[in-house]
Formats: sequence, C-alpha cells, structure tokens
Amino acid sequence: MVPRSVAIVGVGLMGGSLAAALRQLPQPPRLVGVGRSVSRMNQARATGLIDDCATDLAAAARSVELLVFCTPVDQIAAAARTAAAANPALLLTDAGSVKGPICAALADIPQFVGAHPIAGSHRQGFEHADPLLYAGKMCVITPLATTAANALQAVENFWQAVGMRTVCMSPEQHDTTLARTSHLPHAVACVLAAASQPADLPYAGTGLRDTTRIAAGDPELWASILLANCSAVIDCLAETSRGIAHLEQLLTDGDRAALVDWLKIAQRHRQQLDTPEVH
Amino acid sequence: MVPRSVAIVGVGLMGGSLAAALRQLPQPPRLVGVGRSVSRMNQARATGLIDDCATDLAAAARSVELLVFCTPVDQIAAAARTAAAANPALLLTDAGSVKGPICAALADIPQFVGAHPIAGSHRQGFEHADPLLYAGKMCVITPLATTAANALQAVENFWQAVGMRTVCMSPEQHDTTLARTSHLPHAVACVLAAASQPADLPYAGTGLRDTTRIAAGDPELWASILLANCSAVIDCLAETSRGIAHLEQLLTDGDRAALVDWLKIAQRHRQQLDTPEVH
Repeated sequence: MVPRSVAIVGVGLMGGSLAAALRQLPQPPRLVGVGRSVSRMNQARATGLIDDCATDLAAAARSVELLVFCTPVDQIAAAARTAAAANPALLLTDAGSVKGPICAALADIPQFVGAHPIAGSHRQGFEHADPLLYAGKMCVITPLATTAANALQAVENFWQAVGMRTVCMSPEQHDTTLARTSHLPHAVACVLAAASQPADLPYAGTGLRDTTRIAAGDPELWASILLANCSAVIDCLAETSRGIAHLEQLLTDGDRAALVDWLKIAQRHRQQLDTPEVH
Repeated sequence: MVPRSVAIVGVGLMGGSLAAALRQLPQPPRLVGVGRSVSRMNQARATGLIDDCATDLAAAARSVELLVFCTPVDQIAAAARTAAAANPALLLTDAGSVKGPICAALADIPQFVGAHPIAGSHRQGFEHADPLLYAGKMCVITPLATTAANALQAVENFWQAVGMRTVCMSPEQHDTTLARTSHLPHAVACVLAAASQPADLPYAGTGLRDTTRIAAGDPELWASILLANCSAVIDCLAETSRGIAHLEQLLTDGDRAALVDWLKIAQRHRQQLDTPEVH
C-alpha cells in the first residue's frame, strides 16, 4: 500500500522519525533524504535511516513515487511546485502544521494532498528519530475540491501505514482548530517565558516549568507557524485576553464561589485531555 | 537538631510527604497527625506514616515541640492562634504558598515562623507521600521583626533537615515573587483550559497538555491561594495581557525579524529554567 520509493525533504526530527517508521514496515520503500546540507544528509545515510540522499529537489522528485515535505511551513509551497513541475505524476504531501496558505498556493496541483501529522518532540535532529513518534497519533488531511481522489487515498494510506489515524477537514477548519490546540498554547507559553525574570528562577516550581516548556521550541520554526496562521492566532490571543480579564474581575470582586466554579471548569476541561479516548 | 516531637496539621500529599521525610532521619521525631477526619488519620497511622493522631488541635499542640501547618492557606492563621494559645512555648511553622496575610495575622506570636517549601505534586492524599518530595528544593522562610531569633533558627534547621535549602525574605517579597513563578502560571493555565473546546481535544498535542497541566489542581485550594495573593496576581495578569497585546502587534505587523527576536527571548528564559544551578 506504500509507494516503492519515498523522498523526505527535511531530515530532522520529524522527517527522520518518518524514515525510521517507514523502515519498520514489512516492505519498506526505498528512502531518499533531501536537504541542503550534504554532510547532514550523508550522516543520515550513514546511520541507515535513508538509502540515498540528494540536494537537488527536482532530481529527487524524478526518482520517487511519493515526496513528503518535513520542512518549515513557509518553505513547502514553492518547493512542492518545483517538485511537481519536475515530475507531474509525483504524489506530494507534507507535514506542515498550518495548512491554509500551503493548500491555497498549491490548489492547481491535484497530486498534492496537504497533511498535518499531529506529533512532535522537543528534540531536534534526526539523531533523535523515533520510529514510534507517529504511532497512534492523529493526522489531519486537508484535501481541496481540486485534489485527485487517487492521490487523497494514497496519502491517507501512507500516513496510516506509519500508525496514524487520519481525519479529513478543510484547511481553514484545520487552521482554526490548531490555532486553539497548538499555536495559542505556544504563544502563551512564550508570553509567560518572555516576561519571566531570571532572578525569580530559584523560586520556580514545576508549574512554571510545565506551563512554559514549549517556549523552548525553535524560534524560526515558530515564527513561520505563527505568521502563517496569524489571523486565527490573533483571534485566540484576543479570546485569552478576555479570559484573563474575566479572572481579574473574579479576583477583584473576591467572589470565591464564582472563582471555584471557574476553576472547576478549567479542571474538568484539563482532565478531559487525559481521557484515553481523545488520544 | 530536629525537635523530639512534631505535629503535622493536614496529612495530605504535602503533610504526608513531610512525615515520610522525617521518618527517614537518623533520629526521627515522634509524629502526630492532626486532621478533621478520624478515619483518614487512622489510615495514615496504619500505614506507619505517623505515630499518633488527633482531631483536637489544642490537645495536639500541648503534646509536641513543633507544629507544622500543611493545610490550605486560608485555614492556617486562625488555627495557629489556637495552637499558640494552648501552648505558648510551641514552635510553629507552615507550608502555605502565600505568606503576607498569614504572617501579618500572626505578627504578635514570636514563636510562629512562616515558611513556604517550594515543592509539590499533582497527586493528592498521603497515599502518594514521597519522602524525597522536599529534597534539594528551596524553602522560603519569612520572619518578621517580631519573630524570635531562636524560633527562626529552629525552623530553618527543621526544613533543612528534610533536605531543603532555605532562604529568608519578607512575606511581601515572597508573595510578589511567587505570584510570578507559581500563581500566574496556574492562573494562565486555567484560562487556557477553561477556554478549550471539548471538540478540539482529538487535535491537541503535547503542547496544550504541558501548558495546561497544572489546571487540574484542586479548585478549592487554588481559589484560596489566588484570593490570598490577589493583588500581586492581578498585577501579573495585567502584565500578561500587555505581553499578549505585544505579540498581537508583532503578528499584525507581520514583522518576522521582531517576532523571531521575541521568541528567542522566550526560548532563552525557558532554557534558563532548566539550567542545573537554579534547581
């Protein structure tokens, strides 16, 4: 069900883990790593993660059946167009965490099927590749009306082959949902971390550490994500400011009963995140 | 260096872990658990965590040298006054995470020395007591000008005996510092959790889970903390709103360079939280 040859553009933690997962299939495809750094690509090949490596995207596109972009979201659309021009039969998908701008830019390419495997790690680099990174996680697929049906089916099969559950929605629905579940938490963690005072660090407990953990993420990567989805993220930030104002009012009023009720809503919502059925 | 007999008021996770830590000392004190529930106290005694149990605070106060409050912050001051009246020679300390109101209310009791051992767990109940919960962590001691020097020394020794590093500061300095490092992160985690939509849960990754983890904390306990420190918490919430507005502006401007710079500040601050010297 998986193509016989796959090129992965961007062999970092995400791309490397995808390669590692594909390696474990009963009939693994031939894997080509594509990246700018010859030495990094050679290192990835030396570890056995990929069979071959390339710095020329067009050449790689002509040598495989499926090409997956695991690069920053603002580098995917232009590169996908280059790859599709080099090989019109090539099946294309990506792992970008914002879908609207990418899918809109590639709407005329029926073989491109946008995807967002919701999996991640705070680690970086293929050295930390985890063959189980994607297993059991959700992959959102965002086809357009112009997407070829056989391409959609093949891309769904592909992500399912590495253990993911797939669900289809529009790029816009994906982006507003992920703004709430991923981009907003990152933004707020960064607001807290940016405002934290070094002199306070000895008095920080696990709460501040947990709440700000994702603020350690790659600034360049996250700047791309937040800008690519800025309209939905701005809406979420405005809603968060309203939530903060609501809490300030509860504290100013000293209304303990209302505060407890509000904290119970937060507690219940948080507990739902740990119920098995949502994983 | 540790008193020969210690009463712990509130034998939950914090009080139970304190008992477990004291049990491991070369010369452990006799331990009396004090609580409202006879059955819970008997259970704690049956597990060997305490030697004796009591529901009568005044009687317990007359039977020991040191009494520690591990109860919610709004229950400490009145109970400490009762205990001091029952036994004026009794040494008193607490584990409350807000210090201003408690220390102000007890300023006329020289034997009371406010303390905040900065340690915690998302678990509840003495069944999860951890003898190493306090080991290597920071304990803030908040003496007043009216605090007896020998009481201060004894209370510092006590928290150091369970492996803590102690530092003295004023109750006000403690409360503004902890508002930033603990109460604000809790409040913001709750704002995010309260606004989260159940339909979004399948699309939540580790980022939302980490960022909101502490929102699962006990609503009654946290209502007490946020209200006891509401002035400092409100200041922090206002600063967070300003931080959010700043980020909204960066996104509205589409100023990638400024956004990356800001994300780098957040990243650097977050990384400092994981440097060994601040633990």
